[in-house]
Amino acid sequence: MTKTIDFQTDPSKYRHWRVEYDGEVANLLMDVDEDGGLFDGYQLKLNSYDLGVDIELADVVQRMRFEHPEVKTVVMQSGKDIVFCAGANIRMLGGAAHAHKVNFCKFTNETRNTFEAAEADSGQTYMCAVRGSCAGGGYELALACNHIILTDDGSSNVALPEVPLLAVLPGTGGITRVTDKRKVRRDLADVFCSIEEGVRGKRAKDWNLVDEVVPNSKFDAIVKERAHELAQKSSRPSDAKGVELTPISRKFADDGSVSYSCVDVAVDRKKRCVTITISGPDADAPATMEEFQAQGADAYMLRMARELDDAILHLRFNETELGLVIFKTQGDPELFKAHENLLLANKDNWLANEVLQYWKRLLKRVDMTSRSLVALVEHGSCFTGVLAELLFSVDRSYMMEDEFEGDNRPIATITLSESNFGLCPMGNDLTRLQTRFLGAPENVDGAKAKIGQALEASDVSELGLVTFALDDVDWEDEVRIFMEERASFSPDALTAMEANIRFSGPETMETRVFGRLTAWQNWVFQRPNAVGKDGALQRYGTGVRGEYNMQRV
Amino acid sequence: MTKTIDFQTDPSKYRHWRVEYDGEVANLLMDVDEDGGLFDGYQLKLNSYDLGVDIELADVVQRMRFEHPEVKTVVMQSGKDIVFCAGANIRMLGGAAHAHKVNFCKFTNETRNTFEAAEADSGQTYMCAVRGSCAGGGYELALACNHIILTDDGSSNVALPEVPLLAVLPGTGGITRVTDKRKVRRDLADVFCSIEEGVRGKRAKDWNLVDEVVPNSKFDAIVKERAHELAQKSSRPSDAKGVELTPISRKFADDGSVSYSCVDVAVDRKKRCVTITISGPDADAPATMEEFQAQGADAYMLRMARELDDAILHLRFNETELGLVIFKTQGDPELFKAHENLLLANKDNWLANEVLQYWKRLLKRVDMTSRSLVALVEHGSCFTGVLAELLFSVDRSYMMEDEFEGDNRPIATITLSESNFGLCPMGNDLTRLQTRFLGAPENVDGAKAKIGQALEASDVSELGLVTFALDDVDWEDEVRIFMEERASFSPDALTAMEANIRFSGPETMETRVFGRLTAWQNWVFQRPNAVGKDGALQRYGTGVRGEYNMQRV
Repeated sequence: MTKTIDFQTDPSKYRHWRVEYDGEVANLLMDVDEDGGLFDGYQLKLNSYDLGVDIELADVVQRMRFEHPEVKTVVMQSGKDIVFCAGANIRMLGGAAHAHKVNFCKFTNETRNTFEAAEADSGQTYMCAVRGSCAGGGYELALACNHIILTDDGSSNVALPEVPLLAVLPGTGGITRVTDKRKVRRDLADVFCSIEEGVRGKRAKDWNLVDEVVPNSKFDAIVKERAHELAQKSSRPSDAKGVELTPISRKFADDGSVSYSCVDVAVDRKKRCVTITISGPDADAPATMEEFQAQGADAYMLRMARELDDAILHLRFNETELGLVIFKTQGDPELFKAHENLLLANKDNWLANEVLQYWKRLLKRVDMTSRSLVALVEHGSCFTGVLAELLFSVDRSYMMEDEFEGDNRPIATITLSESNFGLCPMGNDLTRLQTRFLGAPENVDGAKAKIGQALEASDVSELGLVTFALDDVDWEDEVRIFMEERASFSPDALTAMEANIRFSGPETMETRVFGRLTAWQNWVFQRPNAVGKDGALQRYGTGVRGEYNMQRV
Repeated sequence: MTKTIDFQTDPSKYRHWRVEYDGEVANLLMDVDEDGGLFDGYQLKLNSYDLGVDIELADVVQRMRFEHPEVKTVVMQSGKDIVFCAGANIRMLGGAAHAHKVNFCKFTNETRNTFEAAEADSGQTYMCAVRGSCAGGGYELALACNHIILTDDGSSNVALPEVPLLAVLPGTGGITRVTDKRKVRRDLADVFCSIEEGVRGKRAKDWNLVDEVVPNSKFDAIVKERAHELAQKSSRPSDAKGVELTPISRKFADDGSVSYSCVDVAVDRKKRCVTITISGPDADAPATMEEFQAQGADAYMLRMARELDDAILHLRFNETELGLVIFKTQGDPELFKAHENLLLANKDNWLANEVLQYWKRLLKRVDMTSRSLVALVEHGSCFTGVLAELLFSVDRSYMMEDEFEGDNRPIATITLSESNFGLCPMGNDLTRLQTRFLGAPENVDGAKAKIGQALEASDVSELGLVTFALDDVDWEDEVRIFMEERASFSPDALTAMEANIRFSGPETMETRVFGRLTAWQNWVFQRPNAVGKDGALQRYGTGVRGEYNMQRV
């Protein structure tokens, strides 16, 4: 599995999903092409999925928000007759390297979260209409929808058969959504997760595994009715025109570097690090949201987010040995502020809202990236608003203090905006500044009082907004030593350390999925009982159960 | 490491700890005997510890609460000159099996939690006086204390060097207490966890890694002064006499079974299960707390808790292949109620409080036990009050309904008490019933209305207090099938599944330590970069760093 994985796609290329638009309702049909696997060596039978299927799904969800403001309910259904979805493809999992399995689960988790985010942030509800077997990752797709209808045809069911069948966890949020979202009684959850054949009919409703069980004869009618009912609750505009997400422009260099229109990804394999430099806008901000809409996907605030998002996904999957990601920005803070201010001043506009909500998701993607993250606030920087938010997402930040010999760029500053105080909460539902100052909440107020001001290093240090501010004498050595040191540590220890340090304070379903469930799944993905040559994943389909070491850990 | 580990000890046998009593202050001195390791193959240099050291520590903490009501402040110090504590012994970790490492960390975590519980539940504060190097597990000992004083002698320091030095996490709560208890700013936590040599002097205070940094010349005086100040805040009685924790009586059989005075542990190796049967009291309840105190460690409610606690620890470490723990009780519910009621009616009495708080800790130990847990409510059962709480701790419960042919024991009942509604919260700070009924909080009130009533299966089912109530026809088959099925699953998948299902709802520092931090540590403990033959743990002390696969996961 060494081929380069591309996260860019569009409806003309889909092999696994169809969308049928019906005014305010979109019917999203999963109809996986058996022969359309991203890698060789497996067939995607029974609507099972691999990363390629999920890349298309993520694209569908994203386009639904930007290109289809009129869609208020998305109805997820199967395009096949007998099966809803059999979950992640087991042969793919059996053959995948540990790092791919982990990255695959993280990406699918992020995509499931976007279903719930669509309703919470944008009034676009995902509901799931289940006919046929809905097992494992299939049921996890349903769980991520906010309303599940199951047909009562005597065979359709929901199931999490991973533990009995495969010796792994339902790792795409399944257990957590069962206990925390649907609040299934814990002993019933235990029973449910132990039954290969799952639960159907009335019991599925009684245990709250689904919201409705309906007679098969009325299934289509009730699904349609419910979709329109849910649409009535939406605040999405009915008359708006969408913005087409046109292909992003990028160029790959031989050394692994990538350049986008305003994001530059410079790879240094020897130092195992990559520098992502974000350029500020090079033109005036649109004066109105009409003008913004006319620019469409070219509008700076949207374009830059899409480029950065693509860059991060690319690095996660295709550049696993680059352990350190360095964020830099260059540009005019005032100009950036103007671009951001248009969105902030028009939060009620559906498109401004979508762009701001996208930034929220994108920053969460940064938080969840298992690389050491550092920001360098150099002279000429443009760490303003949501770009400044990157400073509070990274593990550490270094800022240039005072003038540097031979460097005639504008002195390094940071400018906070409303974006740093509530618009982009982390998975734990706190702002990054609240998380940062958990022990000194008054510092959040101190920072808030400085909104809009270009803060130089001495102010920034006093406010505690960067880790270290360094002058010309110390900068080069300190930064170099940090980079060398970081590159020498065990990547595993760093992954685990960062996963624990980044999210302090309260927990949410989201942090539990990524923190607790994922960590246990990663552990199971290392255990011979699951992945060894006689483990359950390897033996799946042979008719012979995995051979287990019965010691309990 | 196959020798049987005994969790029973007493001060006459200690090799690693000394306590100097000084009225309301106890000075607890860590002075590890290098040659006193629990296993062969390593020396406990520099006050490093293994499980044997921690078993003594757990014993100290327990006795401090029961035997020393007069102690209001416990001052943890080093009995050695240059070092406070170097943490868990690395050669021991390098040689230990995965299961032992995991169980060792869990037990040490539970013991650290008892420091904090002593103050919260019993007004007995742990403070830590650090002179010398306080690194890794050593600093984790300090972090579990509620006040840390560090001497400023130019070399004494606190450190979490695990990531740079050993490629593992500070896994005994270290990272979580740094970010969540001490609320160290996350980027400073990142820096701190990356510095082998740690932090000393003023910076340790500035970053909130310690509470006070004091001149070395004044260290002893300030430590003494602070200990007495903390003692003034305590509600512990000054004139009470302690209860001696006399040796518990137990007998080991050849087949692995153990019998205590009122707890029976029956091992079935073929079925990989163990049945723990708790007998109700066989004598009248003491009429007053004076009478209870006179019975001392023989008093039923204390004796039974100590026996059950020992049984669980024994099973965790010495019987790792018994994957299913079956809880049964037999006895007179009314008589049990009388014994429990004496404590409930005297919660203000220090000893009654200690026994109840011990039950709280014991039930948390059950929650954290990585075995499938089931309760069988058979006829003749005594699931009352805190014993009924076991029903809400297990993964599933089965209850006999109606009369069974040839079974003339009293019909199965469950009796709730005040203990089930707030006295024994789980690690998530909810009661087990609140966690159980997260999706239907009104059911908690429904159950509360039945306090004191002997509830038969039909009532119990209606209230949702057991998983299944079964009659004579179904009982045997259903229970047998469950046991066979459970025994056939992968132990790892079950461990991970149960760790996720048991704790829904809110999270606390405690659940984060056991859920998130521990899961990541377990993962790291499987990774070649840490435990492989060229990994950091194996190479420790050779002067050669571990050889790492640099792929990020």
